[in-house]
Amino acid sequence: MGDRLIHEDRLFPADSGTRAVARELYEQVRYLPIVSPHGHTDPRWFADNAPFGNPTELLLAPDHYLYRMLFSQGISLAELGVADRQGAVKADPRTAWQEFAAHFYLFRGTPSAMWLNHVFAELFGIDRVLDASSADFYYDTIDEALKQEAFRPRALFDAFNIEVLATTESPLDPLEHHRRIRSSSWQGRVITSYRPDPVVDPEYQDFGASITLLGEITGENVATWQGYLNAHRNRREYFRSMGATATDHGHPTAQTAKLSPAECEQLYAKVCRGGVRAEDAELFRAQMLTEMARMSVDDGMVMQIHAGAHRNHNDWILENYGRDKGADIPQRVDFVHGLKPLLDELGNEPGLSIILFNLDESTYGRELAPLAGHYACLKLGPPWWFFDSPEGMRRFRELTTETAGFYNTVGFNDDTRAFLSIPARHDVARRVDCSFLARLVAEHRLNLDEARELAADLTYFLPRNTYRLDQQSVPDAAPV
Amino acid sequence: MGDRLIHEDRLFPADSGTRAVARELYEQVRYLPIVSPHGHTDPRWFADNAPFGNPTELLLAPDHYLYRMLFSQGISLAELGVADRQGAVKADPRTAWQEFAAHFYLFRGTPSAMWLNHVFAELFGIDRVLDASSADFYYDTIDEALKQEAFRPRALFDAFNIEVLATTESPLDPLEHHRRIRSSSWQGRVITSYRPDPVVDPEYQDFGASITLLGEITGENVATWQGYLNAHRNRREYFRSMGATATDHGHPTAQTAKLSPAECEQLYAKVCRGGVRAEDAELFRAQMLTEMARMSVDDGMVMQIHAGAHRNHNDWILENYGRDKGADIPQRVDFVHGLKPLLDELGNEPGLSIILFNLDESTYGRELAPLAGHYACLKLGPPWWFFDSPEGMRRFRELTTETAGFYNTVGFNDDTRAFLSIPARHDVARRVDCSFLARLVAEHRLNLDEARELAADLTYFLPRNTYRLDQQSVPDAAPV
Amino acid sequence: MGDRLIHEDRLFPADSGTRAVARELYEQVRYLPIVSPHGHTDPRWFADNAPFGNPTELLLAPDHYLYRMLFSQGISLAELGVADRQGAVKADPRTAWQEFAAHFYLFRGTPSAMWLNHVFAELFGIDRVLDASSADFYYDTIDEALKQEAFRPRALFDAFNIEVLATTESPLDPLEHHRRIRSSSWQGRVITSYRPDPVVDPEYQDFGASITLLGEITGENVATWQGYLNAHRNRREYFRSMGATATDHGHPTAQTAKLSPAECEQLYAKVCRGGVRAEDAELFRAQMLTEMARMSVDDGMVMQIHAGAHRNHNDWILENYGRDKGADIPQRVDFVHGLKPLLDELGNEPGLSIILFNLDESTYGRELAPLAGHYACLKLGPPWWFFDSPEGMRRFRELTTETAGFYNTVGFNDDTRAFLSIPARHDVARRVDCSFLARLVAEHRLNLDEARELAADLTYFLPRNTYRLDQQSVPDAAPV
Repeated sequence: MGDRLIHEDRLFPADSGTRAVARELYEQVRYLPIVSPHGHTDPRWFADNAPFGNPTELLLAPDHYLYRMLFSQGISLAELGVADRQGAVKADPRTAWQEFAAHFYLFRGTPSAMWLNHVFAELFGIDRVLDASSADFYYDTIDEALKQEAFRPRALFDAFNIEVLATTESPLDPLEHHRRIRSSSWQGRVITSYRPDPVVDPEYQDFGASITLLGEITGENVATWQGYLNAHRNRREYFRSMGATATDHGHPTAQTAKLSPAECEQLYAKVCRGGVRAEDAELFRAQMLTEMARMSVDDGMVMQIHAGAHRNHNDWILENYGRDKGADIPQRVDFVHGLKPLLDELGNEPGLSIILFNLDESTYGRELAPLAGHYACLKLGPPWWFFDSPEGMRRFRELTTETAGFYNTVGFNDDTRAFLSIPARHDVARRVDCSFLARLVAEHRLNLDEARELAADLTYFLPRNTYRLDQQSVPDAAPV
Repeated sequence: MGDRLIHEDRLFPADSGTRAVARELYEQVRYLPIVSPHGHTDPRWFADNAPFGNPTELLLAPDHYLYRMLFSQGISLAELGVADRQGAVKADPRTAWQEFAAHFYLFRGTPSAMWLNHVFAELFGIDRVLDASSADFYYDTIDEALKQEAFRPRALFDAFNIEVLATTESPLDPLEHHRRIRSSSWQGRVITSYRPDPVVDPEYQDFGASITLLGEITGENVATWQGYLNAHRNRREYFRSMGATATDHGHPTAQTAKLSPAECEQLYAKVCRGGVRAEDAELFRAQMLTEMARMSVDDGMVMQIHAGAHRNHNDWILENYGRDKGADIPQRVDFVHGLKPLLDELGNEPGLSIILFNLDESTYGRELAPLAGHYACLKLGPPWWFFDSPEGMRRFRELTTETAGFYNTVGFNDDTRAFLSIPARHDVARRVDCSFLARLVAEHRLNLDEARELAADLTYFLPRNTYRLDQQSVPDAAPV
Repeated sequence: MGDRLIHEDRLFPADSGTRAVARELYEQVRYLPIVSPHGHTDPRWFADNAPFGNPTELLLAPDHYLYRMLFSQGISLAELGVADRQGAVKADPRTAWQEFAAHFYLFRGTPSAMWLNHVFAELFGIDRVLDASSADFYYDTIDEALKQEAFRPRALFDAFNIEVLATTESPLDPLEHHRRIRSSSWQGRVITSYRPDPVVDPEYQDFGASITLLGEITGENVATWQGYLNAHRNRREYFRSMGATATDHGHPTAQTAKLSPAECEQLYAKVCRGGVRAEDAELFRAQMLTEMARMSVDDGMVMQIHAGAHRNHNDWILENYGRDKGADIPQRVDFVHGLKPLLDELGNEPGLSIILFNLDESTYGRELAPLAGHYACLKLGPPWWFFDSPEGMRRFRELTTETAGFYNTVGFNDDTRAFLSIPARHDVARRVDCSFLARLVAEHRLNLDEARELAADLTYFLPRNTYRLDQQSVPDAAPV
C-alpha cells in the first residue's frame, strides 16, 4: 500500500552495508510508542472527539509550511483557503485543494512532501502521486475517510500509539478542554504546557489587556511586579494540575537579564504603561526568562526556550492575514552572551533543566554543543521548524555529537499542529537518527550494541526522562 | 582524449548504485544548450571575432582565481603577467606560464584545476598533467590552436552550444560592441545586463565624474534626484534595446532603505558633494536598491543582488595593481533585516523578481531559503564566486532545498570572464546537481521521474524562465 | 589486541571502493614520525623522566574534555578528582575513576572516546569496554603499567616516534625544564613556544605583577612602551635559544590594531595603571598582535593566533575551581575586519607567517579560506579544540580546500596536555585526511598519485616546513 509514495527504505543511506545497519536499528525502534512532549495540536479535538472537517480545512489551510511555499510561487493565500485577518475564508475547499494539487511538485525534496505522502499512503491508502489529475480522487478519498469513526481524533491518537501528547497554551487559557479530557473515560494522555509569551512579551498583540486578564484570572494584583510574578506562579501551578511538566518560551533572541528587584519593578511599570521602546521590551523578555528559570527551580517544570524567529517579516501579510502566516524568518542568535546573565544567576542550580531550541545552525557547534556539554542545566532541543528535516537532523547530529554527546540532547519533538502527520514526523526522525548511528557503526566509531541502545534512547527514553513524563506532576490526579 | 586529466565519471558519488542514477540523469542534460544569463565575458570578442592572444594572456593573467592562489604562496603578480596599476605587464608570457605550470599542484582539489583540466583536455586535446616539465608543451599547443579559425570567439561560442550569453556593463558603456554584434550576420545571442555600481556607489572610484557623464549621456539633469533617477530609466531602456533582461548590483551588504523623497533628495545632494561618510554611502546604496526594484516593477527587468564582498581588502595590492586583483574577501551578511525596507515597500508587487546572490553560507538555511520560500519576488541565485565549486554547490542544495524547494532557485550562472571555461563550468554544475538528485533518489526521497524532470529544469528551463530569456525584450529587433 | 575497542578500519568511509583508497593512503603515512608543533605537555615530564602517577591523576583529572562532559550530566568536579581553586583534591583516585567508568557511555560518538579507547587498547592492551563493571580492572591494569620503565615519559616519547614536540610557555617561565632536557643525554627534541598572553592581555589574572616580573627578568624598563617591547624581544630571543620557532596568542577575538607610537604609549600607560576598561584591554591586545607580527618579521618566529574563546563562561566554576576548567565557550569571530589593521601594516612582508586557529566554523569558507588563499603571510591552522574531531576535520577540508587549497594549511596539531593520547590524535587526523583524499580520488577529483603526495604532505612535510622545524634556530646548539 502506498509503495509509489513511500518506500520501505526511505531515508536510509545508499551504501548497502550502512543501510543494512540502519534497517536493523530502525526495526528495533520503529514501533516504540510516540512520546510527543512539545506540539501545537488543539486539545478541543480530543475533548470533543468530533470528526475532522474536509481535506483542505484539515491538511492545507492550517499548514504554514504548505501555503508559504505556494505563496512564494505567486499563489495567493485566499485561493488556498487561508482565512484573512477578519477570519473570512474565500476559497471553495475543493478548488483550493485542486490548486494545491497542481503545485504539489513544488515540494519535491522537502519534508512536507515526505510527511504528506506518508499520510496519504499509510492513513488513506492512496497509491497515486498528487497532481492536478489526481486532485479530485484525493479530495474524495480523504473526505470520505474523515467521516469514519476510525478517523475521529481519539481513535487516531490510539492508533498512532501515542503515549503522551503535550499541547501548548497561554496562561490566559482556562484549559477547559484539558479538564474535559482528564475527566473523560478516555485513557489518552494529553497534557498542556505553559507558554507565557502573550503576558511576557510587551510587543505581543494586546499585551496590556492580557496582563489585566491575568490579574483577574489569578486574583493577584498585577499592578505590582511581585503580584505579576505571583500570577505566573499561580498559573504554573494550575497548568501542572493539568499535566504540564514544561514551559515554553518563544523569543526573538536568546537574551536573558539579571536585574535587581528595584530595576525589575521600574521596568515592569514601564512596559505596563504601554508604548514601550524596543530595547525595554527586549530587556523585559530577557529578565522574564531568568524569572521563569527561577520558578522552574522551585516547581520543577522543564523550561524550553525557542529562540531566533523574526516574526511576521512580511508587513502586508500581517496586515491582511494576521500573525503566523508563514512569514516568520530565522535570524542570527547569540547564545554565548545572551544566556550568560541567566546562567550566572541560576546556571548551577541542581534540578534546573533548560532545553534550547534554535534556528541558527551556525551556533550548533560554536555555541550550543559547548554550552550543553558543560552546564548541567542545559540540553539541546531537536532541530526545529525549518530544520525539522532529514538534512537538518543530520547536520544537528554531525555538529553537536562530538562535543555534547547524545545524552545532552532530548530526542524528537514533532512541534506540529498537523495531527495526522505526527507518525510521519516521528518516523522521519527515527530513520534519520538510525542512519546517523549506522554511519558511525559502519565507520567503526560506535559498536552495534552501543548503537542499539542509543537508538532506543533517542527515540523513547530521552524525551520521556528529560521532560519528566514518568513523574506524575499532580499527586492527587487519577492515573492518566 | 584527455583521460588522464578528466574522467568520464568525475564528480559522481562513489556509491555504485547512486552513481548509476547520477550518470543516467546527467546523460539526459549533458548536451542541453548552455544558458548563461550572468557573466563577464568581453562583448568586443564577439564583435571583432579576432583571434585570442597567447595562453598567458588568455588563461592566466585575467583569472583572479589563479593568481590569488599563486600570490598566496609568495609568487608576485608581476611574475604572472598581471598588469600593474599603470597597465604595464612586466613578465614574458612564456616565462609566466612556466611559473604557473610549476605551481599548478597548488590547485589540487580546487575548481580551478577541474575547469582548466577540462579546457586542456576537451578543447586542446592535451593528455599530460600540467607541471614544470610539460609547461612548454602546453604553451606551444595552446598557442598554436589559438591561431586557428575554430578558436575564434564566434566559432567557440557556436561550438559550445550557447543559446544565450549575457555580459555585464556599466550604464556609462555605449554598448558599441553589442550594437555591432546585433547588426552583424552572426546569429549568436549575446545580450547585456545593467550594472549601475559605478553610478550608485558613492565610494566607487570616480563616482562624481561618472554621475556627470551619466547626465551627459542621457541629457538628464543629474544635479537633481529626479533627474538622476530619470537618467537610470533612460539607460535601462537603452540596455533593454540591447537585449538586457536583468540588472545586477554588487553591494558590500544586503542593506536596503525606504527613505522619503525629501530624504532622498538631501542624501543625493550629500553624496554628490563628494567626501561622503561611510554611513551615508551605505544608506545611498541601500536606497538605490529600493529604487532599482521600483524601476524593475515598471520595466520588468529581473534584479540581481550580489551581496557580501569586502572589496580590495589588501591595500598594497590596490595601490600597486588596482581593483579586482584577487583580494576581495566575503563578509557576514544580514539579509533578514537588510532586505526588510525594500520588501516592506515592494515585496508583494506582482511581477517583481529579485535574485539573491550570497557569499555567507551561514545565511542559506537561516535566512535565504526561508525568505525565498515565502516572498514571491525572491529567488536564490546559484552558489557564487568562492562557492561556485562542487562542495559549495552540494551545500547549497543541502541547505536550501528542504525549505525553499528547487523551484525558488534559478539554475546555474557561470559568472565568468574566462570564456573558454564556460562549458567546463556548466558541466560541473550539471554533474553536481545530478549527483545531488541521485542521492535523493537512492534514499527514496524523490522518484526517478521527478529527478529527471528536475535535472532538466535546473539545467535549462529555470534559468531561461527566471531571466525571462524566452521573451523578446525589444519588440522591433530582428530575431537574435 | 584491543579489537573490541578500536577497529583496524575505523574512520574510513563505508563505501568499499573509497575505503580501499583510504586504506592505501593511510598505510603510506601511518608510520611517519609525529611532528607536534603545538601542544601543552609539561616539559618537566621529560626533564625529570619520573613515572606518571595513578590513572585518575594522569588521564582524568587534567582532561577538561572529560570532566566538562561529566559535569554537564550533573557530576561534580570534586568527585572526579579535579583540584579546587586552593589546589585541594577531595576525591579518592580509584573512586573518581569508578565514577568516570560508570559514565563512560556519555562519550559515545565523541573524539574523547576514540582517543581513550586507542590508548586503552594500544598502550595498555585492554580489550574490554570501560564501564562500571570493568572500572577496577582498568584502574589496576593502568596503575601497574605506569610503574614500568617503558611507561616513563622519555620511553613513551621514543616509542611514539615523535620527531619533535613543542610545549607552550609564558614569557615569565625560566624554561628550566627545557634547559635540563637540552643538556641531558636524551636525544628527544622538545622545544618551547612563546605564549605571551599573561603579559599581553590586561584582563589576565595578575597582569600588573606579571609586567613587573617581566621587567625584572629582562632588565628592561617596562614602565615605558619601548622598554616593554624590548622585554618581549629579549624573551623571544631566549625562547629561540630553547628551540622555539613559534609564538602563540590566545585572544577572545581576532581584532588587531594599527596605532601610532604615541597612541601606543598612552594606551600602555593606561593598561599599566590597572582598572582597565574592556575596550582598552581589547585595543591593547589588538595592538599587541600587530607588534608581535612585527617582531616575527624581524626574528622569523612563526605566529599562531588562536581566536574566539570566551574564557571561563561559568562564574561559579571560576570562583570555586579557577580558570580552564571546561567552561570555555567559542564565540563569533570576524577575521575580515579584525585582521585588516595588521594586514595593512605587515600583510605583504616577505617571510612573515601567521597561522590562524579558529572556533567559528562559519568563517572557514567565508573568511579564512579566502584570506589564506590570498595573503602570502596567512596559513590555516587545523581544526582546533571542539573541532579537533572526525566531523570537524572533514568539514574543515570540505570548507577550505576549494578556495585555499591544501597548501595553505599546515597539517595537524594535537594541542594536547594529554601526552598518552598524542599517537591516538595524530592517528585520527591521518585517517580523516586520508578518507577525505580518498573521496576526492573516488570522485575523480584527484588522481591517486596526487593523493599519495598530499597524504604525506599533510601528515609530515607541511607541519615540518610551516613551523620551520627543519631549521636550527640556535646556531650554536648541539644537534637535538
